Amino acid sequence: MENRTEISALGEFGLIDHLTKNFEVQNASTILSMGDDAAVIDHFGKQTVISTDMLVENIHFDLMYTPLKHLGYKSVIVNLSDIYAMNGTPTQITMSIAFSNRFSLEALDDFYEGVYAACEKYNVDLIGGDTSSSQKGFIISVTAIGEITAEKMVKRNGAKKGDLLCVTGDVGAAFLGLTLLEREKKIYLENPQIQPDLENEQYIVGRLLKPEARKDIVEFFDKEDLLPTSMMDVSDGLSSEILHICKQSNVGCKMYEDKIPVNEQAKQFAYKLELDPTACALSGGEDYELLFTIPQSDYDKLVLNEQISVIGYITDFEEGAHIITKGGNTHKLTAQGWNAFGG
Amino acid sequence: MENRTEISALGEFGLIDHLTKNFEVQNASTILSMGDDAAVIDHFGKQTVISTDMLVENIHFDLMYTPLKHLGYKSVIVNLSDIYAMNGTPTQITMSIAFSNRFSLEALDDFYEGVYAACEKYNVDLIGGDTSSSQKGFIISVTAIGEITAEKMVKRNGAKKGDLLCVTGDVGAAFLGLTLLEREKKIYLENPQIQPDLENEQYIVGRLLKPEARKDIVEFFDKEDLLPTSMMDVSDGLSSEILHICKQSNVGCKMYEDKIPVNEQAKQFAYKLELDPTACALSGGEDYELLFTIPQSDYDKLVLNEQISVIGYITDFEEGAHIITKGGNTHKLTAQGWNAFGG
Repeated sequence: MENRTEISALGEFGLIDHLTKNFEVQNASTILSMGDDAAVIDHFGKQTVISTDMLVENIHFDLMYTPLKHLGYKSVIVNLSDIYAMNGTPTQITMSIAFSNRFSLEALDDFYEGVYAACEKYNVDLIGGDTSSSQKGFIISVTAIGEITAEKMVKRNGAKKGDLLCVTGDVGAAFLGLTLLEREKKIYLENPQIQPDLENEQYIVGRLLKPEARKDIVEFFDKEDLLPTSMMDVSDGLSSEILHICKQSNVGCKMYEDKIPVNEQAKQFAYKLELDPTACALSGGEDYELLFTIPQSDYDKLVLNEQISVIGYITDFEEGAHIITKGGNTHKLTAQGWNAFGG
Repeated sequence: MENRTEISALGEFGLIDHLTKNFEVQNASTILSMGDDAAVIDHFGKQTVISTDMLVENIHFDLMYTPLKHLGYKSVIVNLSDIYAMNGTPTQITMSIAFSNRFSLEALDDFYEGVYAACEKYNVDLIGGDTSSSQKGFIISVTAIGEITAEKMVKRNGAKKGDLLCVTGDVGAAFLGLTLLEREKKIYLENPQIQPDLENEQYIVGRLLKPEARKDIVEFFDKEDLLPTSMMDVSDGLSSEILHICKQSNVGCKMYEDKIPVNEQAKQFAYKLELDPTACALSGGEDYELLFTIPQSDYDKLVLNEQISVIGYITDFEEGAHIITKGGNTHKLTAQGWNAFGG
């Protein structure tokens, strides 16, 4: 090879765009391919939703503070979350793992205990997989399969001007949990006698290590006959996800800082570290909440569910994506949070 | 953890049995779960077949003699082969990869060129995936999705006494290709001036580096209205696969050494290394041929296809699994080939 382009020059989304740009779908049954939370395959009216994720030790998780049982649980959850983000119901998963010989059978049992706990809680079947050796570290690849009726599929590209912008649960806590655990790890490595004190930080640590997927929200939509116009899960951070929806729906948005749901314990911990809780909510990832847009006319039904916060509304594309701060200032949203220098 | 059991004490199949023994299927749509080439999900009569495999650098492939384009192609093929082994038609794949920063964008382009070439040749869509970093090496995880009608699904457990035991193409060549490339690698590492001479060994090297899946055979079955009673693909070696079918179908078999299809070039190379071509065929893996059983009454149709060899027949379970050698001796089949000391 004569040329060498560093992958880092493209970023993950740039890389995927690059690698897939010349590929055309061949099967009529392929309804939705790359670029959303999951792919969709048609099966005579009912559709199959497919999502896949790979988790690599020391890139996506650190076994120094991640119990293997939690890791097994989370590996399933992050994939189910993608199926719910299509408004689908997950039904099956496949799970492939590769591990070095530093892992014992008991360690794998712990991991699978978490996998099975998640499968049981979310009513999905583990239907296949592969186990193999790795030269170094633990690698996990999960594919989740789900069902959806064609009329109920929610993609990222359907947000319309005037729609309400909503998010479930609270955001930013998983990032703060990660910050805490990374800090404690550093202290421990420098001074192994000091045991970490996580007593008062159970919420943020739990949000990182044992996330849940929002099955309840998809069931609520079904029960109340609600259909979001667009939806995705919050894995990379709220502002980055909002910008995805705006870009794919060709719209803008206005959101309000004071409407962003942040857990009280998370907020206190952020203050302790002199971090801005809003910045953590906007740019921290791994919350696995659902971000969606829905017509204003559904507002009366939405307020029935205290797990849903309306954080803003959709505007014309030309108006851009902005956040109105508590102080009343308007800033341009960026993938990293907001741009204090932008309009 | 107080106990530590080495994974190697169980072997891959023992490990999978161990990890899955307490898991029960929850969804009515899960027709077939772990233990076959692929899992099967029902969708209103038509069924979805799912198969997944993970390939890890220096465990499953060696980039010293595996061009990335070939690796991309093979990663797809090994998964499609599992779908064909159910008598299904692959329609989609997902592909997740993790790679260290030693890989450039051009290297990934080469890899995906192979992926797309396989997708195009076999008419499947790449519908999703994940790309991430790894600390070391290149890791590939593919999930293949296919279609099948309920009546045509062929599992491993349907072989009946009197059925013909058949294999497609030829077997053992991929193992000999691997042996050759490993030998050349060793010579090169000891003496980098010596360039490998693979001129006359293109067949066996090609069988290892660029295998094909037996789409043609599944199409032939469909055209001739043939339905095997059991089937699987030959990835671990012919004798190991035959024993899987015998065990899962609760039958025995008799097979004939002189009926095993071995390519002439492969045979000559085996002799050169003083290896027994039959032993290579029985215990060498990665041929991705189809091994199947079919009623004797279908013999007239089978002989139409010169890509199919009848290598023996199915017996009662009590008779065990045996091979009759060219010299007329009967040996017990083992996963490693045959047991010269057994009955």
